[in-house]
Amino acid sequence: MAATSSVPALPATPLAVRAVEYVRACETEPVANHSIRSYLFATMLAGHEGLRPAADFDPGLLFFACVLHDLGTSPLASGTKRFEVDGADMAAAFLTDNGIGASAVDLVWEAIALHTSPGIAERRGALAYLTRVGVGIDFGRGAEFITDAEGQAIHAGYPRLRMAGALIDEIVRHAARGPLNALPYTIAGELVRERGTDGRRTILEMAARASRWGE
Amino acid sequence: MAATSSVPALPATPLAVRAVEYVRACETEPVANHSIRSYLFATMLAGHEGLRPAADFDPGLLFFACVLHDLGTSPLASGTKRFEVDGADMAAAFLTDNGIGASAVDLVWEAIALHTSPGIAERRGALAYLTRVGVGIDFGRGAEFITDAEGQAIHAGYPRLRMAGALIDEIVRHAARGPLNALPYTIAGELVRERGTDGRRTILEMAARASRWGE
Repeated sequence: MAATSSVPALPATPLAVRAVEYVRACETEPVANHSIRSYLFATMLAGHEGLRPAADFDPGLLFFACVLHDLGTSPLASGTKRFEVDGADMAAAFLTDNGIGASAVDLVWEAIALHTSPGIAERRGALAYLTRVGVGIDFGRGAEFITDAEGQAIHAGYPRLRMAGALIDEIVRHAARGPLNALPYTIAGELVRERGTDGRRTILEMAARASRWGE
Repeated sequence: MAATSSVPALPATPLAVRAVEYVRACETEPVANHSIRSYLFATMLAGHEGLRPAADFDPGLLFFACVLHDLGTSPLASGTKRFEVDGADMAAAFLTDNGIGASAVDLVWEAIALHTSPGIAERRGALAYLTRVGVGIDFGRGAEFITDAEGQAIHAGYPRLRMAGALIDEIVRHAARGPLNALPYTIAGELVRERGTDGRRTILEMAARASRWGE
């Protein structure tokens, strides 16, 4: 089991525990588990690339950005804007209500708002970079540095439950709630188009399915 | 001609003049004219909404962000990343080479990188907001507050030349230069998909064509 010992633990602060409780109350189990795995992968990526906690990024904020990144899929989201921003606003409200300062909240907001923006998030600082790439690793992108034992341990703790399809179901559901939620050329708008009227599979699901973790 | 007098002038500083020369050397005429009109519309929007130059946004940076926002369509762009970021990098290099400081350059970079991101750019400060919405007005979105005389004066100075199709031609050309330039769920990737193999019209062109300015 030596190889699995490099899987990080979740932070144990009261606010971190509360954040996980909040996510589990707001989101479906596949989406919540995806969010936690994204944090674990993001943390492992930081270590792999030599990005240092505190010196290069705030590990507490990375936890919040990753764990809270899909709040926009929740029925508790406003349903009036694109799901990334709806989730960023919910995360910002949660953190503000719990005493986190405005500049730190804005960093988390930005990382969540940009998590579906390839090529942009990676250029907006370490927090947005690690959040986007951590989420991407859970979709099977760039996961080569994770060992099979590590991947299995993470999925044993937080089962996959056909994450990709389940997440897209929620994005499509959110899209139907308001006219601004899924404009053409945004990921939600294009997922709605791909799903069409017969619920067919999307490029995003097919890519996940073909990856080492499966859908 | 009274109504047209509310059309702003271009700034006359040496660097502003040089920026326009740079854009005209880098871009096709329809794309360069679109970029200048976007600045005029953004400035009129700021006035319309009571956003004050200097107090609420830097009008010099707004000029650079708007005028330089489509540099990524240039053959001089690297061709190795999404066109928004390719253009943001060219704009940042141009401004840095001309003595603009790093924090101002970063604001322009962000406004250009986010100009195709509806619902996100509008939330990243006045510069990113005005840049995105100014560009959108030139696509016919939210242009109701512009009078016909103002619109005609602006288009007389900077002719439209079937801007939407011409710009998409360049985005599609840029997309073909590298594998990261037009990923699925980005505007370039979806424009490439819509154009298909027979160059058919896109949602973006059709929306422009149906708007008050036409394509």
